Parts: sequence; structure tokens; C-alpha cells
Amino acid sequence: MLRVRDPIHNYILLDELGSDLVDLPRLQRLRRIHQLGTGNLVYPGANHTRFEHSLGAWHLAGRAAAALELKRDDARAVQAAALLHDVGHGPFSHTADPLYRDYLGKSHEDLAIEALQKGAIPEVLQRHGVDPRLVADLVRGEGPLGSLVSGDVDVDRMDYLVRDSHYTGVHIGVDLERLVQDLVLTPQGIAIRESSITAAEMLLVTRLQMYAAVYLHRTCRVGERMIERAFRLALDGGEIKPEDLPRMDDLAATFLLRHCTKSDAWRIMLAVDHRKLLKVALEEPMGDYREDAITELAASTKRQQALEAEIAAALGCSPVDVIVDVPEPPILPEHSARVVLESGRVVDVDAVSSLVRGLGVAQRDHWRLRVMVPAAKRDAAPAKAGPILQRHLA
Amino acid sequence: MLRVRDPIHNYILLDELGSDLVDLPRLQRLRRIHQLGTGNLVYPGANHTRFEHSLGAWHLAGRAAAALELKRDDARAVQAAALLHDVGHGPFSHTADPLYRDYLGKSHEDLAIEALQKGAIPEVLQRHGVDPRLVADLVRGEGPLGSLVSGDVDVDRMDYLVRDSHYTGVHIGVDLERLVQDLVLTPQGIAIRESSITAAEMLLVTRLQMYAAVYLHRTCRVGERMIERAFRLALDGGEIKPEDLPRMDDLAATFLLRHCTKSDAWRIMLAVDHRKLLKVALEEPMGDYREDAITELAASTKRQQALEAEIAAALGCSPVDVIVDVPEPPILPEHSARVVLESGRVVDVDAVSSLVRGLGVAQRDHWRLRVMVPAAKRDAAPAKAGPILQRHLA
Amino acid sequence: MLRVRDPIHNYILLDELGSDLVDLPRLQRLRRIHQLGTGNLVYPGANHTRFEHSLGAWHLAGRAAAALELKRDDARAVQAAALLHDVGHGPFSHTADPLYRDYLGKSHEDLAIEALQKGAIPEVLQRHGVDPRLVADLVRGEGPLGSLVSGDVDVDRMDYLVRDSHYTGVHIGVDLERLVQDLVLTPQGIAIRESSITAAEMLLVTRLQMYAAVYLHRTCRVGERMIERAFRLALDGGEIKPEDLPRMDDLAATFLLRHCTKSDAWRIMLAVDHRKLLKVALEEPMGDYREDAITELAASTKRQQALEAEIAAALGCSPVDVIVDVPEPPILPEHSARVVLESGRVVDVDAVSSLVRGLGVAQRDHWRLRVMVPAAKRDAAPAKAGPILQRHLA
Amino acid sequence: MLRVRDPIHNYILLDELGSDLVDLPRLQRLRRIHQLGTGNLVYPGANHTRFEHSLGAWHLAGRAAAALELKRDDARAVQAAALLHDVGHGPFSHTADPLYRDYLGKSHEDLAIEALQKGAIPEVLQRHGVDPRLVADLVRGEGPLGSLVSGDVDVDRMDYLVRDSHYTGVHIGVDLERLVQDLVLTPQGIAIRESSITAAEMLLVTRLQMYAAVYLHRTCRVGERMIERAFRLALDGGEIKPEDLPRMDDLAATFLLRHCTKSDAWRIMLAVDHRKLLKVALEEPMGDYREDAITELAASTKRQQALEAEIAAALGCSPVDVIVDVPEPPILPEHSARVVLESGRVVDVDAVSSLVRGLGVAQRDHWRLRVMVPAAKRDAAPAKAGPILQRHLA
Repeated sequence: MLRVRDPIHNYILLDELGSDLVDLPRLQRLRRIHQLGTGNLVYPGANHTRFEHSLGAWHLAGRAAAALELKRDDARAVQAAALLHDVGHGPFSHTADPLYRDYLGKSHEDLAIEALQKGAIPEVLQRHGVDPRLVADLVRGEGPLGSLVSGDVDVDRMDYLVRDSHYTGVHIGVDLERLVQDLVLTPQGIAIRESSITAAEMLLVTRLQMYAAVYLHRTCRVGERMIERAFRLALDGGEIKPEDLPRMDDLAATFLLRHCTKSDAWRIMLAVDHRKLLKVALEEPMGDYREDAITELAASTKRQQALEAEIAAALGCSPVDVIVDVPEPPILPEHSARVVLESGRVVDVDAVSSLVRGLGVAQRDHWRLRVMVPAAKRDAAPAKAGPILQRHLA
Repeated sequence: MLRVRDPIHNYILLDELGSDLVDLPRLQRLRRIHQLGTGNLVYPGANHTRFEHSLGAWHLAGRAAAALELKRDDARAVQAAALLHDVGHGPFSHTADPLYRDYLGKSHEDLAIEALQKGAIPEVLQRHGVDPRLVADLVRGEGPLGSLVSGDVDVDRMDYLVRDSHYTGVHIGVDLERLVQDLVLTPQGIAIRESSITAAEMLLVTRLQMYAAVYLHRTCRVGERMIERAFRLALDGGEIKPEDLPRMDDLAATFLLRHCTKSDAWRIMLAVDHRKLLKVALEEPMGDYREDAITELAASTKRQQALEAEIAAALGCSPVDVIVDVPEPPILPEHSARVVLESGRVVDVDAVSSLVRGLGVAQRDHWRLRVMVPAAKRDAAPAKAGPILQRHLA
Repeated sequence: MLRVRDPIHNYILLDELGSDLVDLPRLQRLRRIHQLGTGNLVYPGANHTRFEHSLGAWHLAGRAAAALELKRDDARAVQAAALLHDVGHGPFSHTADPLYRDYLGKSHEDLAIEALQKGAIPEVLQRHGVDPRLVADLVRGEGPLGSLVSGDVDVDRMDYLVRDSHYTGVHIGVDLERLVQDLVLTPQGIAIRESSITAAEMLLVTRLQMYAAVYLHRTCRVGERMIERAFRLALDGGEIKPEDLPRMDDLAATFLLRHCTKSDAWRIMLAVDHRKLLKVALEEPMGDYREDAITELAASTKRQQALEAEIAAALGCSPVDVIVDVPEPPILPEHSARVVLESGRVVDVDAVSSLVRGLGVAQRDHWRLRVMVPAAKRDAAPAKAGPILQRHLA
Repeated sequence: MLRVRDPIHNYILLDELGSDLVDLPRLQRLRRIHQLGTGNLVYPGANHTRFEHSLGAWHLAGRAAAALELKRDDARAVQAAALLHDVGHGPFSHTADPLYRDYLGKSHEDLAIEALQKGAIPEVLQRHGVDPRLVADLVRGEGPLGSLVSGDVDVDRMDYLVRDSHYTGVHIGVDLERLVQDLVLTPQGIAIRESSITAAEMLLVTRLQMYAAVYLHRTCRVGERMIERAFRLALDGGEIKPEDLPRMDDLAATFLLRHCTKSDAWRIMLAVDHRKLLKVALEEPMGDYREDAITELAASTKRQQALEAEIAAALGCSPVDVIVDVPEPPILPEHSARVVLESGRVVDVDAVSSLVRGLGVAQRDHWRLRVMVPAAKRDAAPAKAGPILQRHLA
């Protein structure tokens, strides 16, 4: 048993399966992918990586499997899935997601599934008697145990919320012990005991809190979107090849972008390095716009670029330095989390928790459209960009 | 400056005003009043006292006053009010509240105000140039600064939530730094900056969480209600005098009740000492009953006793050993907390927070009617007590 | 399995053995014995009890037994011993020790052993198939597993150091996980792996630190010694009977002493209640005196009283209000802790740790003789009491 | 005031001086220098950076300056020195130190001083009325306030110990509040009050503990020495220029070394990336060797290389894959920390603390000579390398 010291879980134990997987370059690469992408531009302590998060998910999966008294084969598959679920992430974590979509036509989950289908990972799994297809199902959240790895109250989320809190310094109230100990396997899938419903509620509230404080934080978004922009310039100009994206770590990405001099990519990357960031000139609740217009805009890089070009023209600056930021619409699929009542009945969590029922609406409070411009244009931008947004989206 | 070590705030500084107040027997008595009454029956670590909580409220009041840049006189009055706000509490904290109501016709706030009107406390205040009437107003939550001491986001609540969490082991997510630093004094009273709204939301969510996990915890309620019962027997039998209640600490109360042998008071107290508690045989959401019937029942000890007698008769046990527990209806006066938007406009917190708007309803989830009976009657009780409750309340 | 929430160990599980033991009045009484006696006079948060500490020791014993892969019978005996080791403590914990010695001729360990020999405790143990004699041996630190319960790196110490830190707010660096996981059962008894020697060193350093900060803290000693004095007056005057001491909890003791009005006991107890404490007028390293004189003085209450009378006469006050405080000589039996080197050799910890070797001497730094007098005599006392001490002890 | 969220100090405030300094590329570069170099090979959470540590030192310097009631000019200089003290660090922090020594003839302190003498840093300082020479003196630990920035109990050490603990998960017991609040400015320089001597002792013990657990951890040393080796090959082969070292961050260093293909540098860097590390085949206390031989060896890269070549020849492998690791001799200059006794007398800490007196010797326990070889040679190495070391060093 290998013992790894972790500030969240104290000691994480890796058996031979775990340590053989961790030794693979695909996993070692996660050491160099920041969990929060450019989050350290706002929270200087947020330098933690997908690697330690993956170890943490493995650890919690093991504890949940023990609480559920899973059979050994299931337990090992669940742990492996938890360890491997993030293996498809690109440089700067979620920053790469829209690049994956537009240049590879894939998501990071797709890439994780691919990694489970051929190469060293399925070899190691098979050597240890674990079926890679079962692991892939679990990563997709499928099957009776799928919600442990990818669901509303899964080990991924349990680990990342507590871990992100530890490194950002944001205070949260998540009771990991209770969440992993009070799971029950029911005919409807994994459920949490009624007596621990407060722990489940707090996990979901905390997720909302962390969206507001970190994941959708104004400046974190600016950093992410600037790096995405630099990547697009380099990819469009052929200085970086799309198929290299999934192999890159944050440091290769940074170094390469610093040297992509055919376009403005190098200039943008340097600006991020020196923390000379674009400024948010306009920030509006999405509710101010037509839902269909926003949905289309969120899905189409082209439309975003057209809007950016129009605003840039109005401001008299390069479209390279204007970003219209439209985060994905928030989805809180609470219905997937289940609760076993003391009577034995299994119900959806929002049937018994008014608090959870209210979270979907509450999450919309933090869903904002933002226009990012050079510092020199910040004051002028609202008057110029506002009407353009109104015309296209209201 | 006196420096006191505190596990929540690290070091608490007491100037001469603070240390002269703390030296008074009225304040020293709070060392022997458990903050959570009988909470240690469930949470063995919950032995903390009103004394340390009062010091904590003093500390936070000082920090808030500094953040608000209050004038020295106002700052001192606010700190004194925070230190003194709990001085009227009776033995086992809130356990004594219904006894105060029924036997003295007063609340613990009334007794705190009285303590500010004559005796050693106003003398000390005046000696240090602090107006006791101003302090009394603050304790009542009146005036522009009143909401700092008694409001929705006040230093009392900030301290007790974090302190109760520390001693019970319940994980919460309260950001004290942000809450005390981001206050603004507006024409509409104290408000919190929009950028810190998440901190305010989390304080209110945490309060709900602690109600579920601790304050309304089934077994905590049993302990409280048993001691209240013992007191009533001793008071009704003349073994304890009502006017002595406000002078008692937990240990005098316990010792005296152990020796009130004319009624069953001693037996009940001994049962609590040995943790031989009544059991909750029935627990129903208040929503299952008529609101007006519940409200009347909550307000009238007589009605509760009549119901208890009826259930006891049906169960064949002494009415002394049956308790119908009807907690006060939850009130979440969110409207009193205010937020200063970035535009400068001051609004109620529930105007900008969907999460807070939902809390009022959510709190009702935890509001339950409970019937407590001897262990031997637990199984039989639901079938017997259920119809009685239905008849009177549904 | 009963699950108890604990701020130190998160959740403590009690099986039927544990929960039957905990239900006994002897154990429930520990709920009302403060772990640090009068420590809350200095650290207002230090209201924790022997009860939660006993649960914590049970918990750690279970974890250590699992790490050592003990047989079920041994594991249960070790856990029971950990849970019961403090059952003999008197009111205010160690405050009662000298009273036990002088009035009963026993130590609190003796009383714990007696409780294991007859009455409800051995009955419960036997009902669960645990041999009370084996438990008694473990409490005495005897046998190959004895050092787990009573040794240099035992579960008692592990729990109390971390617990006392949590409630006082003193920062310490103890790695419980490592200490309980890295134990090995060797022919020479329990030993800790060489790779975890730093954890063992830090436990021993922390003990020294807590002696300085808490256990021998000037004001904590004043509180303890005043209550001891009140007890002696009440015992000598027949108002309290020696045989009642082991049955008392802190609150019975406090209440009774408040009402022992034949002597000054009530006055002293009230002074402690109101925190009107004697002051330390003189504090000298023991090294300033003859070792044999100090040893004799520490062992003899008579000699202490003679010295106190002489100083009181010189100061013109009652000998009741003068205390000469001579703590027991510090003993650090490091030699009992063992380390398994990577080579497999088992050695004493001080053979491999220069740090541990130095602790014995370092502990002497905190060993002081103190003279406590009424506040009004503090300034005059050094000049009067100093020469008296010199004459008798130097 | 800019407010930065930090997991250690909660919120760190930056005034205009602080924020203008932080905006400089020299400071922003520290975002990409890991505080513990390759420490994350052992502690996956140890991804924290010199940037956040520098902010933490600034914060503590501000608090210490307030406690000491320093004049504004002194306070600002002390804070600036704390913020800038690490600005000279090279890639992977201390890993670069021997490269600086051998290729530039400088230390990282020298480079920090140079950065204070010309360029953007002194310009910003002067614009804010802070004398760069005074800041340089403080960084060197000179003048009456120098020991605050560079001494035994300085803000640098206070921050890094607590920060390294937070990210590695090693439990420590450092009381920052006490350390910064109980400082006194005496004619002999900064001193700590006698009442806080335990806090100072624990800081020094913790430093020893962290040396054992982290800074001199076997595998951390392997990672550091492998990267140093890769650098030497690249520098000697002209693929990296010495003068570029101080401008590099960790990611440029890693990326460049991955592409230095003329020598084995790329292969070593890749091995570190994939965590295929050399193994420690031999580890001996330095006390087993002649002190003068060790001192010479530590100072001379040439001698180390000769020894490595000899061992490599005996093992039949390339000298590139053999490392003889000789850490600098530990120096604990306790004498520089001072204590103000209650009598007012100022003494060295080791005059009053037996614990501190013992630390110098204790630190030697962790000073080891290590031989690192490829995994395949680990078993054979002791028998081959041992006699060679004996011959040269014993």
C-alpha cells in the first residue's frame, strides 16, 4: 500500500491498481493541470491540480464503496473510475472545453472515454482484472453505481468543493464523513439516508456558493477567456495543432503560447502572465435578454465573434481585445439525487427539501453576460456596447 | 488590555470597560450557563458557555465598529451591548424561556434590559462614560446601529453559529472576516456590500442548517423539555421560587432539582443526568395540522398539559412522563437585512437573493410536532397518540 | 452501531459493548467532570469533559487495534480500557488527586481499578465476554499491549493533547493518523515505525508545550489550589465526607462547597465562582532550591501548611489565604516509548532522537514553586515570603 | 485597498505601494515558482508559490509593525522588504541555489539585492517615498529591524512554515498571532516577550520538524537534485545560458529542459515529469564521516562529480544517473533570537530555553549523506558505493 499525504483527506492509500494507474504518464500529466485553470489570478493559493483531485476522488470512492459494502469488483471499478474521470481534461481544465468542442468536436468526457478504450490505461485495468467498459460506464454516470462517480452527490463533487475551498480560502460547510457513510444502494440506485439530508443540501448549496465565489468569478472568467482567445489565434494560424491539445499540460500551453508570434496569441499570454487583464465593462443578468438569443449565442463561437467585432468597431479597438462572455446556462439536475426516507421509501431530494427546490432559481442569480474590454476602454464601453447587446439579444 | 485566548477568534482583547464588566458576578455567572442547554446530550463536545459567546460577540462588535469607522462612543456602546446581550439568560439557556414566560411574565431580553437599568452593570457603564439607555436600545435592536447587535446579520448570530459549529463538530461555511469587514452605515441602517452578499446568504443558510442539526435536534429537544418539566414540578410545588430562576446557573439548577423530592422533579433530573431520556414516538410536520390550532397550542402551556394528560391516559402512564413538544413557529425576518448595491442603492436582501427568499419556506421543513414518551411506551404510542392529535389539531 | 459526533474525531462509533458501558451512571458522571478542572478560568473555551475524552480514547484505541491487527478479544479489551481509564477521577479532575491521597490513601488510578473489580462495570464487561482483569492490567499499563493505554505514546495522551488544544485554542502539531497507523507489535511491546518518529517526537514536544501553556499555567494552578483548599476545610470540618469524593461531579462539588459555611470553604468557592483569585506573588524555578527539600515538601501537606502559616503570619493575613504551590516533579519516562528501525531493530526512542533526549531537562524549565496570596498582599509578599522560603528550602 | 483572499491569513490587504510592487513582472513571475520546488512529487498538494508566500510575509510584516508601533516609514520599508525578499529566487526555488553559485557566483539573496538597486522595483519604491537602500538592508537582516525580515523568528519563516503545513498536510503548532503581537523593540533589537517564549520555541521546533518531514525528505531531494543535474547538462552544453536563469519561471525551465536534446537533460526532465525517479540506495548520518571531508564535499561540485563517477563506474552505469547528495550543514543560529524577561532584561533565547539549546544537536539527526541511483541498481549500490564513501570520507 502506497500512502500519500493529502491536506484534505490526511492519508490516501493506493493499492497496486491505484499506484499502477497513477504511474502512467496520462495521470502524471494531471500534476501540471491546474484544477481551477486561471483561478490563481484571483485566489493566489489556488494552484492545486487535477492530479490531487483525482487521488481525492479515488479515496472517497473507496470510502463510499466500503459504506455501501460493494463487492470487490464493483468497488475497484468505482475507485478506478473516480481516479480516471478527469483524464481527458485539457490545459487549464475547463478553459479548454470550448476549444475541444470547436476544434476536435469532442468533450473532455469523450476524451476520457477514449483513453479507457485503448492504450496503457485499459491495459493496466485488465491486468488487475478490472473491466475498462464498466469503468467507462461509471465515468458516464451509467448503471446503478454511476451516480457515485457522476451524479448530483458524487465523489467528484465532494472532493472538488472541499479541495477548492481549502486552496482558495472560501469557507464552506461540507460534511464529507456523513456524505460517504450514509449512502444506501436501493433499487432506484444510490441514495442518501433521510437523517443525512442536511449534508446533501449543504453540498448543493455549497456548489452554488462556489459558483458565485470562484467558478463564475468575474476575474477568473477574464483569465480563462483570454487564454482561450490566445489558443484560438494560435490554432487558427496553425501555430498549434488541435490534436496536440489533449496532450498538453498547463506549462507547455503557456510556454508555446508565449512563443506563438504570428498572431496576437503571444501578447495575450504575456498579458495574463503579467496579470494585465481585460476589464469587465458590462455585466448583466441573463434574465435581461431573450432566452433563445442567449442559448444560441452560448452555443456559437461565430455569433460571439460577430458581436465582439461590432463592439470593437464601436470602441475603436481590435476585436482581439473584446470578449463577450456567455457562460453555459446553469443546470442543477437535483432530481437525480435520491433520499431514502426512514419509512424506506426512496424519493427525489427535491420532493423533501424546499431548500434544494429553490436552488435552481437561485443559481440563475449568478448567470451573467459580461463584456470584457481593454482597461482604457472600460469607461466608454457601457454606452457603446449596451445598445448593441440590446439590439441583438433583447 | 487584557488578552483572552479563544478557540474561535484566537485572541480577544478586553479594555478596562470590558474587563470591569466581565468581572461582575452577573457576567461570571454566564461561565456556568451552557450555550446549548442540554445540547451535550447529543454532542458531547457542546459544553461551551454563554460567557465565551458573550466575549466573542464583544470581539466581533469591536471589529465591526472599526470597519464602520464608528465614533468612539458609539463603538463602546455597541461593544458593551454585545457583551451584555445575554445577561438575562436563565439556567440551560433557552430551556428557561418558557419558565420565564409562565412564572415571571418576562423574556430573557426583558431581564437583560432590567439588568441595564439598575445595579452594578449601569454603574460600571456610567463610570466609563457609556450611557446604559443607549446600550439597552442596542440590545433591543433599536436605532441605526441596533441591527449590529440584534438583527438578521448581527454579531450575536455570527458568533454563535461559528462557536456552536466548533464545539458540536458540525461543518459550516461562515466567513466572519467578510461579514464584519464589508458593513456600511447607510441612511437605512447597517447594510452589507453587494460583493459580500454570498457571505450573508451563507450565514442565513447556516442558521437553517444548525436548526436542523442542533437547535431542533430531536434528542436536544427531549433533554430541554425534560428539564423544563422538572422545573415546573419544583416551581409548582414551591420547592424552587420563580424569582430565583434568573440568578441560578446550570449547576445550582441541576443540584437543586436533584433534591426536589416532593414531586417527580428529582427523578426526571436524575434521568437526564444518567441520560435515560424519554423517546420521540411521533414526529410530524406542522403542515399536517391546522395553523391556528398549532399557534394556540404553542402559546399555551395549559393546552399542552391537557393534551399530554389525554395521551398519558391512553398509554396508561403518568402525564409527568409525556411531553407534547411544539417549538415556536420559525420566523426568518430576512427583510431586516440590507444590501448596498454597487450602484449605491440600498435594498432588502431578499430582493436580490433568490436563495434567501426560499429560506422562509425551507425552514418550515424542520418545524415538527413531537410526542415524547417513556421508552417502554414508544412502540404503542403512535397508534394511541396519533388520533388524539388528529382530533384536536387537524 | 451508535454514532457520536465529536469535534476531534468527527464520528465516533460505539458498538454494544461501548454503548452499554457509556450508559452506566459511572460513565455518565464524567459528563460533569471538566477535563481541565478550573482551566476555564484562563481559557474560557476549556469546558470539555472527561466523558468526551473517554470516548475519544475509545475511538483511537479502536483505530490502533485495527492498525496492529489485534485479535478481536484483545481489541475489545484495549478499547474498553481506553474508555474506562478515567472512571476514577474526582471532581475537577486532577484537583482531587491530593485529596484522594490525603483523605482516602488512594490515587484515581486505584479507584478506576476498584471500579473494574466489582459493580456494574465488570458485569457489563463480562456480559460482553471481556475479562475485567485484563482491562485492569491494561489500565495499569501492564502486559504487551499496556503501553497503548498507559504509556508514553498512548491513546489517552493522543486524545487529550489534541482535545485540550481544540478547546483552549493553543496551536499544536500532533499527527494522530500517523501515530495510530504506524504502530507495530514487537516482542518488546508496542513500537512506532522509524518513518513516523517525527510524529512521536512532536507528541512529546507538544506535551511539554501544553504543560507550559495550560497544565502548569499560573492561574490554572491558583484555581485548582483554591478549590483544593476549600475541600480540605470542608473535609476537615466534617461538612463533606471523604468517601463521597469519588461520587461527586463538578457541579455537586461546587454547590456543596458554596454551602459549607462552618469554615471558609464557602467564601473560597464563591471567590472562584466570581473569579476573585489569589495572586501569584512569587514564582521561582525549583532549581533555586535543594532538591531533597522540594521533594519532601511536595509529598507532605503538613509541611506545606506549616510554611503557609509562617508566611501568613509575616504578611498579617489568614493562613487560609496563603498557598505554597509545589507541583509534582516532572517525570518524562521517554524510555518506555519504542521505535522499530527500518533494519527491524527495536530501540528506545531517546536512543535515536536527540530532541526527545533533551525534553527531560527542558521540562524542568517549567517546574516552579509559587506563593499565592490575596491581591492586597501581592506587593508586600516577595520581601516577606522570599527569606522564609530561603531558610527552609535553599 | 486591494483585498486578496489567502487560505492562511484570510484576507491580505495591499495598499498602493503593495499593489504597485505586486504588479511588476518580477513579482508576477513568482506566481510560477513553486515554493517547495519539486515538493509536489511527495506531497501532491504542495503546489503553492513564492508569490503567495511573499504576500503572506508582507501581511505578517504589517501586523508586526503595528504591534511594535513602528513609525510609518519604517513600517512601509519592513513590509516592502518582506514582499520583496524572495524576488531573486530561481526556477524551483532552492533547487537553483547551487546553479546560481556555480554559474553566476551569486546567491538568490544577492540577486534580490541587485533587483533593489536598479530597475522597476527601486523606481516604484522611490515613487512611494520608500528608500530602496533601507529595504535592501532589511532583506540582508541588518539594522535594528532587520531580524523581522531575516532572523530567527522572522515573518518569512512564520509564513513559510504555516503555509507549507497547509499545503502538505503536515500538522504543526505555530501560533502566528502570539508571535506577531508579542514583539518588543529593545536597544538590542527586536525581542519577544517572555510570556510568549513557548510560541518562539514551537516555531523553532516546527522548523526542525519540517526539515525532517519535507525540506530534507528523501524523495524531495531526489527530485531537486535530478532537475539540478538536468540544468547542469544544459548549461554546460550551452543549451541554456546562465544569465537567463534568474528570469526563468518553473514552467519555462521545465519546457526548455524537455527540449535540451544535445545532452541527457531532456531525458532527466522527462523522467521527473513522469515521476520515474532515481532511488536512494544509501543514506548515512553525516556523523559517520569526517566533518572536514563532508564540509569540503558540500562546497565543491567537482568533488561530488568525481565521487559520482567512481560510484557509477563501480555500478556500471552512466555518471549522469548517479547523485551523491550532501545537503548544507544545518545551522541554527538561535543566538540571534532574543527574549525580554518580565524583569526587563533582554537575553538570548537559548539562555532561558533548554528546549532551544537542544535543537542544534537534534537537527544533526536529520543531516544525511545520500547516494541516488537508477532503480535497477538500487540493490547492488550499497555494497559498491559504501566502501567508496568510506575511503574518501571516513
